[in-house]
Amino acid sequence: MTTLAAIKAAAARMEGHVRRTPLLYAPLLDRLAGRRVLVKAECLQVTGSFKARGGWAAVSALPPGAGVLAMSSGNHAQGVAFAAAAHGVPAVILMPSDAPAVKIANTRAYGAEVVLYDRATEDRDALAARLSEKRGLTLVPPFDHPEVIAGQGTVGLEIADQAGVDRADVLVPCGGGGLSTGVAVALAAKAPGLRVRTVEPVGFDDMARSLAAGEALRNPATTGSVCDAILTPSPGKLTLPVLQGLAGPGLAVTDEQALQAVALAFTHLRVVAEPGGAVALAAALFAPDLGDTVICVLSGGNVDPGLFAETLARFG
Amino acid sequence: MTTLAAIKAAAARMEGHVRRTPLLYAPLLDRLAGRRVLVKAECLQVTGSFKARGGWAAVSALPPGAGVLAMSSGNHAQGVAFAAAAHGVPAVILMPSDAPAVKIANTRAYGAEVVLYDRATEDRDALAARLSEKRGLTLVPPFDHPEVIAGQGTVGLEIADQAGVDRADVLVPCGGGGLSTGVAVALAAKAPGLRVRTVEPVGFDDMARSLAAGEALRNPATTGSVCDAILTPSPGKLTLPVLQGLAGPGLAVTDEQALQAVALAFTHLRVVAEPGGAVALAAALFAPDLGDTVICVLSGGNVDPGLFAETLARFG
Repeated sequence: MTTLAAIKAAAARMEGHVRRTPLLYAPLLDRLAGRRVLVKAECLQVTGSFKARGGWAAVSALPPGAGVLAMSSGNHAQGVAFAAAAHGVPAVILMPSDAPAVKIANTRAYGAEVVLYDRATEDRDALAARLSEKRGLTLVPPFDHPEVIAGQGTVGLEIADQAGVDRADVLVPCGGGGLSTGVAVALAAKAPGLRVRTVEPVGFDDMARSLAAGEALRNPATTGSVCDAILTPSPGKLTLPVLQGLAGPGLAVTDEQALQAVALAFTHLRVVAEPGGAVALAAALFAPDLGDTVICVLSGGNVDPGLFAETLARFG
Repeated sequence: MTTLAAIKAAAARMEGHVRRTPLLYAPLLDRLAGRRVLVKAECLQVTGSFKARGGWAAVSALPPGAGVLAMSSGNHAQGVAFAAAAHGVPAVILMPSDAPAVKIANTRAYGAEVVLYDRATEDRDALAARLSEKRGLTLVPPFDHPEVIAGQGTVGLEIADQAGVDRADVLVPCGGGGLSTGVAVALAAKAPGLRVRTVEPVGFDDMARSLAAGEALRNPATTGSVCDAILTPSPGKLTLPVLQGLAGPGLAVTDEQALQAVALAFTHLRVVAEPGGAVALAAALFAPDLGDTVICVLSGGNVDPGLFAETLARFG
């Protein structure tokens, strides 16, 4: 169970390595949304997503010299690769061969060894177990890990400090729920009027359905949305119970709404968002029944230039 | 003559309205540049460029209720329109009819009245004089004005505070020189080891040539570069003398280099830069004979989506 103390300890270890990101806003965006929208721009984080936080927290908590292994479609890969390089330890990253090219290239550029596998035909977990044993590597899971959750929770500490409002929904893009959980723990302690609500793509809203049902439910598929960063089969074992206690009802947005949010972030905030990173902004813009002020985490900006250009052509 | 005291006073008046922008960096960008590159991301400023600072400084220094007039291809227009709206005073903005559509649309969205004119056939200054007299508006010039320069100088105050290095070149995109001058005055007082160097498009490097010649020289043309934000005919009367005393030799980059910088800012910093705003980053990446660490101002991010998409297709 991740505590405020663990989140503060992770924040202290990150100091000078991981960035305190700004809380952005734009008058013209507020007008479109019909509410005040504060955007925690984690796309400006050092590896282009909040995953640098969890990666740093996990790697910095290991015994010195321990090599690491991670499985990721891209943002966690870069977070772990960045942290491992800075700590001078080897990193092997298992990535699906259909991950965005920019994410594979950047993971390699941080100095990690990338092992590609075929999502359809290969068993990722078996592959990981073999590699881990053979090479003596410690697995850094993408979300179901106390130090990873503590690292992501530092986003919540910063929001509590930056928000300037006592009461608001805090919309968080949600895959396995590591970011949502860390933020929820930090806010419950530091700013209890700020309540986390997860945001997922329609059809991949396992967390929203699990929160509503009171038990872990699975998605029918993990491919078929442009929001590659947040397509997980089911909530984490550590994350769902915490969010059941601390989060409001989950939200879901369409791919089309996520892409519109990418285009609006371009025009009005001048930041680069990836579709999965923009789902909370999409909810802030398009979901009914939200309050006068919402805070949303824009969780990442690692997007292939071709998809981004296409999105601007459609919605820009 | 703009002083440190005037810059500090402008900073105090802006508090809570104009954003303290982050100083970004990216390990992979440093590697490409072969040096440490710190990027002052003014594209994240509230109107998408540093011009919100000068606009706010000038409008907030006027007697309450005074309407304003500005001439601008876009970023100064938005800065003045934003400041005027927040102060509840009318703003009329003269814009060339070939200004980027996004800049015209945003200027109108801030509530300003936009008057378009034809660069080739109409006399902008005569038009402005007529409007100013008829409507009782005070002209806010884009750069040759002490309060405007003081406002832009707040970028320099923040750089002095954020840089973490004692000695570096500070590369600044330069049109008429308001930003370069304000930053130079602030840095000379607060961080004298940080030296401003102007950056302009090749063929529009009036400031670099004027600094080298010791007298004001003109550009042969003010159209023909993609860097629309910084195409001015000649240095300002207030700016050149200050930069002669405080700035190093001016630099120039090609349009192609500016566009490459736009694409690299997309990939590695996840910010949206406009070509004219990216010339200092281009110099940081491509100019020879710079030191181990450079600071560059990324001065704006108001770019038409079509041009941005095209840039990603060519260089992304």
